[in-house]
Parts: sequence; structure tokens; C-alpha cells
Amino acid sequence: MIAIPDAAARLATALGGRAAAELAASALVEADALGLPRFGIAMLDEWTVDAAPVPVGEGAQAINWLDCTSCFAPLAVASATLDLAGTARQFGVAAVFLRGVRGFGRLAPFVRHLADAGLLAIAGAEGPPFVAPHGGSRPVIGTNPLALAIGQGSNRVVIDVATSTATMADIRNARVSRAPLPDGMALDGEGRPTSIASEVAALLPRGGQIGSLLGLVVELMAGVAGGGRGDPKGRGVFILAFDPARAGEDVEWQARLAGLKRDWTTGGGHWPRGGSLPSEAELDDDFAKRLDAHLARMTGPAGR
Amino acid sequence: MIAIPDAAARLATALGGRAAAELAASALVEADALGLPRFGIAMLDEWTVDAAPVPVGEGAQAINWLDCTSCFAPLAVASATLDLAGTARQFGVAAVFLRGVRGFGRLAPFVRHLADAGLLAIAGAEGPPFVAPHGGSRPVIGTNPLALAIGQGSNRVVIDVATSTATMADIRNARVSRAPLPDGMALDGEGRPTSIASEVAALLPRGGQIGSLLGLVVELMAGVAGGGRGDPKGRGVFILAFDPARAGEDVEWQARLAGLKRDWTTGGGHWPRGGSLPSEAELDDDFAKRLDAHLARMTGPAGR
Repeated sequence: MIAIPDAAARLATALGGRAAAELAASALVEADALGLPRFGIAMLDEWTVDAAPVPVGEGAQAINWLDCTSCFAPLAVASATLDLAGTARQFGVAAVFLRGVRGFGRLAPFVRHLADAGLLAIAGAEGPPFVAPHGGSRPVIGTNPLALAIGQGSNRVVIDVATSTATMADIRNARVSRAPLPDGMALDGEGRPTSIASEVAALLPRGGQIGSLLGLVVELMAGVAGGGRGDPKGRGVFILAFDPARAGEDVEWQARLAGLKRDWTTGGGHWPRGGSLPSEAELDDDFAKRLDAHLARMTGPAGR
Repeated sequence: MIAIPDAAARLATALGGRAAAELAASALVEADALGLPRFGIAMLDEWTVDAAPVPVGEGAQAINWLDCTSCFAPLAVASATLDLAGTARQFGVAAVFLRGVRGFGRLAPFVRHLADAGLLAIAGAEGPPFVAPHGGSRPVIGTNPLALAIGQGSNRVVIDVATSTATMADIRNARVSRAPLPDGMALDGEGRPTSIASEVAALLPRGGQIGSLLGLVVELMAGVAGGGRGDPKGRGVFILAFDPARAGEDVEWQARLAGLKRDWTTGGGHWPRGGSLPSEAELDDDFAKRLDAHLARMTGPAGR
């Protein structure tokens, strides 16, 4: 057993120990703690000692494009997040577009970090074509998640939603287990609905047309404006942040957030919290062993 | 019969003749031409000669909050759109939050205007509680549309999507016609599914959970950060714009947009164009009469 803060601290040190390393490490460890190991320290498989340095945006401007090809992606996204907090506070609104981003895990920890800093943050990531347009027959866009966070403490909201019915990993798992897929999840190579995982050529958008349009929104932001689309070296990611405190006292956004949370939950809705964990949660021995193996590789003779 | 540009020009003159009047007038006339009269010149019912002047943001900053209470809403949204084009070009990214906004029509013409100016634009509008959260029983948020536009000419994309299954106007129409509602559209006062229009107390989110979360995203932006939520005097609206040309030549966003459109349509998807019209389209005599009546009121002795 290993406590989450201990695991995150050890990993942060191996990643260089700066603030971006701390954010990247806690994001990866948290995913394992939430039972999402595909978005956790497994990302360290892509860490190499000769990774390119994380690019730094032009601090004097509100919008930046960063080429993250050959960077260790969780560190690049964390660094861009921290820089964005500064530019958003300076200008009131700021944006960063990353391209060439390899596996970085979940968006939720990064937008949540910005919410903790008092900002409203929105992020999205595009990826290789797995998902067909609504009414279409062939994969065109990625599973294209969108995330948003605002607020602190018990009122904080963290939305992190994929725009597809499933992920390609779900399909791979179903291929292994030979479990049939639910209806409306996937298409075969001829564009026909299928429930057989081994025949899947495309996933369908979540919720039909609205999920398809939201996936297109993410693609237009991260893939077109951000320049990520069609790059075999990695994905496109965007992060925006606003400083609602700039509105002055008229807007009272914190009181409005508290009121919306109350209305949403008493109306029967689930208030999304992006899967944050109690800090006393622990990780099992299997995780501890995997982490040790990664750290040995990263800090051993080859890693140095 | 009246040609669309003629109708828009006459209305623009009555609205004061500046650039914002031209944009507002063309947006309203277009809605009628598209067969959406609820979002068209019917909005002029709310025009009064003593409407408050349209507020102007602080041009030297990238983010502004504008209180539009007592303004003629289409003119306020048009004016904010035009100002945003300037601030987005200056800073690379800019945002405006409007509150106290009464009926202004559709979002599509405003984001399309920004796309024509070379920007990527995103807008959303919250409103009174009509829509229940996914899994919930009572109305908490509005029909909360989201819109996005980027590109020019045949590659231009204009998304404009409500996050609810229907609008309250659809329910009012069904109440009159006594037509049964489709399944999954609405709930009664006890939170139970209903197909009887006269029993409807809440609409459901479009596409289930993903539509519900997207409606919440719009509420958090326009209602919480923008300060529109719970204001009996009007809605909250946000508009963001980015200047993708700031990325320099590496990103080639126009080529990527053309490629995405090609992939999306050959993959069987519908490329959304936000309902723009050929300029030679004409409006019928009923429209011409209604427009004359509005213009007489606006420019007559009481209007002056």
C-alpha cells in the first residue's frame, strides 16, 4: 500500500520536481487511484530521458500555440496549464493550443487545477479518427473529450465527458472478453451497426447528433484552430481560462454557482466533480510495484 | 414579396443605421426567411423608443461584462459582437459576457459574422428554467443553445444547437394542436415522463447525459461566470472569439478546416452551415406587412 501524496511526490521528484512535475504526477497517480489505470502511470511508458524540453509560451500575450512533439505529454500539458493561470489572470481571458501531444491522461485534473486558482477553465483534446459523424458510416474524429471546471470546495464542478459512446480501449477489452457490445455503440467496416467487437471499424457519437456536434466543436478548436488534426506525432489539445473575478462585485459568480448547484441537485441532477479523491485514499501493492519499476527506469543509470 | 437585403436595409435604418443595426437587422430578417419567425422580426415587439443605450466594453481589455438590462437585445448582442471582433484581433482571444438580455433571436448570425471576420467564435445563451438535468425531475436550466463558427465561403462551419429536446414554443404549439409529444421529450409536474403537452412541467436534455452536461456548460459560462442566472430581467449570453491567424503559418488552419470538411462529408456527416440563405431569397407579403407595421411604430410619432 502507498498513500496517494507519497506516490505523487516520488513521481514528481523523478519528473524534475518543479510545479509542472507536481501537477503531472498528481494527475497520473489520481487516475490509478480512481481505477482508470489506462490514464495513469502507464503514461510513463512514453517517458524518455531525451524528451524535448517543454515549450514555453510568450508570457506577454493572451494566446499561444505550442508544438509539443517529442515532449513528455503529461509534463507539457501541466506546464501549459500553469502558464495559462498566469496569462488568464493578466488578461482576464487566455488560451493555449498544444499540438503533437502524446498520451497525457485525463483532462479533469488540469481544469480542476485552474478552478482551484479561481478561474473558469475549459479544455478539449482531439485524436486519431475512431468516431463516425452522426448519420455517417466512417470514422472521422477522435473520442474528443471536453472538460470544464469552476469553483472551489464543495461547490466546485468538474465536467469531463467524452463525445463518443465508448473508447477504443473498451472495444479492445470486449474483443478479448468476447462480450457483445450494446446496441448503438459501433459500426463495422461497411458502416453497418455491429455488436461484435472484432468487427468494429468506427464508434458512434454519444447521444446522437448533439454528441457528434460537440465532438466536431472539439475538433475545430483543438484540431483546426490548434493545428492538431492529422498529425501522426500526437494530438491537439486546447485549454482556455477566464478570470470571473474581473467582473467585479455585480456578478457574484460564487453565489450563483452555489445556487446552481443547489437547484441542480434538488432537481435530481448529479453535480459532476471530475472524480477527485479523498487525500487519505491509498493505492495497492500492484500499483506500488509498477511505480517502482517506472521510477527505477527514470532515475537509474539509463534514465540519468 | 420583399427581397431579404431590402428588408434588412429598411430595418437597419429604423434601428439607427450603424454597423450594429445592420447586423441585428439582417439576423432578424434571416430568421423569418429561414421559416423561424419566433426568432425573427417578432423580436421587435420588445423594441421601445426609450430603450437604454447599448453598453460599450472597455476596449483596452480582452474581457468585458455588459449589463444589457433595458436595451433592445438584438442591438446589444450585435454591438457586443462587433466590439469583440476588435478585441479578439488585438489580444488574440477575447470574451464578452452579457446579462439582462431579452429575446435576441438566434446565435448563428453573430458567430457567423465573427467567422467572416477571420475568427473562431463560440457563443451560448442561458435562460429561465425549462429543462431538467439528466436523471432529474424538475426544470433547472434553460434550453441553453451553444454555437460555434469558423471559416469562410464553402468551408465555413456554423454549429447552433439547443441542449434540450425541444423548446417551450414547441410545447405551446403541441398544446394548441393537441398532438402527442414524442417519448423522451418532457416530464410532468411530478417528474414523470409525459406525452401530453398540457401536462409538461420540464423538458429533457437532448441526447441524455451529454446534452445535460453541455447545457450545464452553457449555464456555468453565461449564467455563473457571466452573471445571467436567476435574473428576471433577461438572459445571460457569452461570446468568445480567437484569432487563429496568430498561430502563424505552422498551423495552416484553413487547410485543416478544408480537410476536416472533406473527411466529415465523405464519412457521411452533415456539415452544419447554420442556415444561411442565398441573397436572392425573398420574403412573402405577410412578412412585408408585419415589417411595415413594426417600422411604422418605430419611426412614427410615438417612435420618434
